[in-house]
Amino acid sequence: MNTPAYSTLTHTFTRLYHLNHLGALAGWDQAAMMPAKGNAARGAALAELQVVMHQMLADVHLPSLLQSASTEPLDALQQANLREMRRDWTLSTLLPERLVQAQSLAASRCEHAWRTQRPNNDWAGFLANFREVVKNSREEARILSQAHGISPFDALMDKYEPGTRSADIDTLFDDVKTWLPNLVQQVLAKQSGESVQTPVGPFPIERQRALGIDLMGLLGFDFEAGRLDVSAHPFCGGVPEDVRITTRYTEADFMRSMMGIVHETGHARYEQNLPADRRHLPVGRARSMGIHESQSLSFEMQLGRSATFLHHIAPRVSQHLGQQPAFEADNLARLYTRVQPGFIRIDADELTYTAHVILRYEIERDLINGVIEPEDIPALWDDKMAQYLGLDTRGNFKDGCLQDIHWTSGSFGYFPSYTLGAMYAAQFFASIRRAHPDLDTRMAAGDLSPVFDWLQQHIWHQASRWSTDELVQNATGETLNPAHFRAHLEQRYLSL
Amino acid sequence: MNTPAYSTLTHTFTRLYHLNHLGALAGWDQAAMMPAKGNAARGAALAELQVVMHQMLADVHLPSLLQSASTEPLDALQQANLREMRRDWTLSTLLPERLVQAQSLAASRCEHAWRTQRPNNDWAGFLANFREVVKNSREEARILSQAHGISPFDALMDKYEPGTRSADIDTLFDDVKTWLPNLVQQVLAKQSGESVQTPVGPFPIERQRALGIDLMGLLGFDFEAGRLDVSAHPFCGGVPEDVRITTRYTEADFMRSMMGIVHETGHARYEQNLPADRRHLPVGRARSMGIHESQSLSFEMQLGRSATFLHHIAPRVSQHLGQQPAFEADNLARLYTRVQPGFIRIDADELTYTAHVILRYEIERDLINGVIEPEDIPALWDDKMAQYLGLDTRGNFKDGCLQDIHWTSGSFGYFPSYTLGAMYAAQFFASIRRAHPDLDTRMAAGDLSPVFDWLQQHIWHQASRWSTDELVQNATGETLNPAHFRAHLEQRYLSL
Repeated sequence: MNTPAYSTLTHTFTRLYHLNHLGALAGWDQAAMMPAKGNAARGAALAELQVVMHQMLADVHLPSLLQSASTEPLDALQQANLREMRRDWTLSTLLPERLVQAQSLAASRCEHAWRTQRPNNDWAGFLANFREVVKNSREEARILSQAHGISPFDALMDKYEPGTRSADIDTLFDDVKTWLPNLVQQVLAKQSGESVQTPVGPFPIERQRALGIDLMGLLGFDFEAGRLDVSAHPFCGGVPEDVRITTRYTEADFMRSMMGIVHETGHARYEQNLPADRRHLPVGRARSMGIHESQSLSFEMQLGRSATFLHHIAPRVSQHLGQQPAFEADNLARLYTRVQPGFIRIDADELTYTAHVILRYEIERDLINGVIEPEDIPALWDDKMAQYLGLDTRGNFKDGCLQDIHWTSGSFGYFPSYTLGAMYAAQFFASIRRAHPDLDTRMAAGDLSPVFDWLQQHIWHQASRWSTDELVQNATGETLNPAHFRAHLEQRYLSL
Repeated sequence: MNTPAYSTLTHTFTRLYHLNHLGALAGWDQAAMMPAKGNAARGAALAELQVVMHQMLADVHLPSLLQSASTEPLDALQQANLREMRRDWTLSTLLPERLVQAQSLAASRCEHAWRTQRPNNDWAGFLANFREVVKNSREEARILSQAHGISPFDALMDKYEPGTRSADIDTLFDDVKTWLPNLVQQVLAKQSGESVQTPVGPFPIERQRALGIDLMGLLGFDFEAGRLDVSAHPFCGGVPEDVRITTRYTEADFMRSMMGIVHETGHARYEQNLPADRRHLPVGRARSMGIHESQSLSFEMQLGRSATFLHHIAPRVSQHLGQQPAFEADNLARLYTRVQPGFIRIDADELTYTAHVILRYEIERDLINGVIEPEDIPALWDDKMAQYLGLDTRGNFKDGCLQDIHWTSGSFGYFPSYTLGAMYAAQFFASIRRAHPDLDTRMAAGDLSPVFDWLQQHIWHQASRWSTDELVQNATGETLNPAHFRAHLEQRYLSL
């Protein structure tokens, strides 16, 4: 094929992939390995790498190469790759360097101060830095908004969820708000009559780690292409060829780390199973944050907290942590589906988590679109927490609007990805069940291959070949349909 | 000061320092953390980084900047910095890219095959690849030799030991050859009458690690600016702000890992104590491989294997590994000064190690200068092993000329640094003893500050401000004087 411009672009983006490897590794190391005094040098090194990569993307020849490539005889896969390359170029070059620097500085200052302001419940102190972060993000949103002809908030959300608009999210979330509060109340009433055994610690960390490794193996993690380590905030990092997941252990509680590892293993398998022949190209990377979260939630929520899976792994829990009544399979299933409205999003159960996301989305959307100002956030937070979860958060900033890191660094528009992921995961599993009516029987016998094979074929191996809507349509026969999420929750929490 | 060219150069070299951080981290991770399947992507990422850094150094403006800077009003420190920057530029740009690539490929192929050829004792198979490595290194040596007006081998050795010539090394080593074989025989005779208790394992790895961490603390390692991990081949890596040392444990033997950690801690303290205000500049980096080795050997040989130090730490050994007769201080001192000629360099004792280095130096010097050919190596090896250590290595390639990794990757001219380091270390300690006649008393009480303060002032904080000769002269009042090394060995091995 005579595609010189496309070939040149492919070469450039392969170079960027190689350099990104070093940044991904340094980011993982920073969280999982690096001692305190290494931080300044690490920050300078990562910033330098960003400069080098930005210079490559901002090369003056790139626009004409992108233009020429679009007239070359590309096959469908190459066209998809070109679409993703153009997207990278646009995101990287539309913003003036002055703004990018100002954002980086303001975010760094705001996040750094937040680490002490949050425990001190210091909303006023936070607000001073946060206003600058909002101002920068609004400028970014305005520039991207004008270039793409979409609303300012949509322009930010598009970075994480290409093609998704707040009109779509509004429809989804407005529907959820009609049934979720009532469902929570029904489940609380139902569960109030259940008796649940609490696990009795301590659980030595080495045993917890062995249990986690065991489950990662069961879930197909490739230990020759990745690792499990420890970090303060668990995440999935590294590169597709070498995926680094982390967890955090406390001796008093094994449940959170165990299910956290299951969650990160979902992210990891997506990365490890991106198509090997093109994972170095934009078309070969994970599709979106929402699709990524759909993989971790397929593992954690659809698989990990299911009674079938927990029955299968209960003996392994006892094998690693010793026998106790709480490890009986039905009890584990009750523990992992316990619903309790609370202040903190990352501690929330599967049901109330969605309410936390909706609340944040509604606030960040209006904030970026200029409908509200930063100082309006606490009152809105209080209102929505009362309305959605029946909780009183007045004056409690540290367990309220100061709890998340996302906004401190200007990551507005990310929160919807969590719930999109939960909805996609429910929809994928509905398809898997249609294809495998015997799914529960096989899972109970420890055979997870129907799940892995389906995800491999329909999600992992597709990477970024399709738009998100096309991906989901091809995989399930319909675009995102939140009815599967509601049906999943009602099935799990009411019918058992 | 009006030094625009110098300032521009400083900016460029600071950027290179930041990028080098990522390469150093990725190299450490590759050895200490990375799973097998990550290797190809890591290699591609590191190669890409090399390209980016080489492009910065090969910038067409650099020669005129270096020229202009030399006419600017620079102070002495800035002039030293300019000297080091010119050195980097020369080393990076004299060689054609074709040769650099050919070297990298041939080295990679030779080293990879060597990993199986060595255990298979396959000299003939090795030779096929090795010829290509030698051919490339000879071409490199010729180019550098012509540019610098020194012999081909000297041009390679200069990469590791700036300013040191083989005429100097010949003088040093010819002298050593007059007394070392006889000294070895005297010591063997003396030690044959000693009784030594052998430690009885197993020694659990977690206990060995705790002992290592304890000694690192005693030796002043800053754990907020570094880590201890495990790798197949122990090394000191990372960056000055975050030094990563490694060791290798076997349950059967704690002695090697313990002293290996002491050795790497010497390297680490040099890096951790480079001058903080200029370690990002060429003038602020470690002086040479020989000076680096002088620090690890100051810790391992001068300090670590001394009877005084071992008396101080013997209780710590028992504390971590349990009481046993072999841990009695005098016995530990005998164990760590036991002399036994053997085939393997890295297993050699302090005395015979030097013979291993001389043998390799004499062969690599003649090989690069075209006096001998690769196929001549085994016979020369056999002759010299018989002559220097009285050992028969005929036909035993795997424990002979196939044992080291250095030549497989074309690192010719590095071996002398090991013995230069041992000699510098002996000379430094002679100076420390002159300044502190009570040194042994203080060391026996666990006060190592005279050593650390002297090294900090005279070596660590000087970094690359001076030529190696100037550094040693300033520190000790004379340039390298091997009489201190001989005196140290005779004192330790004959007079006790």
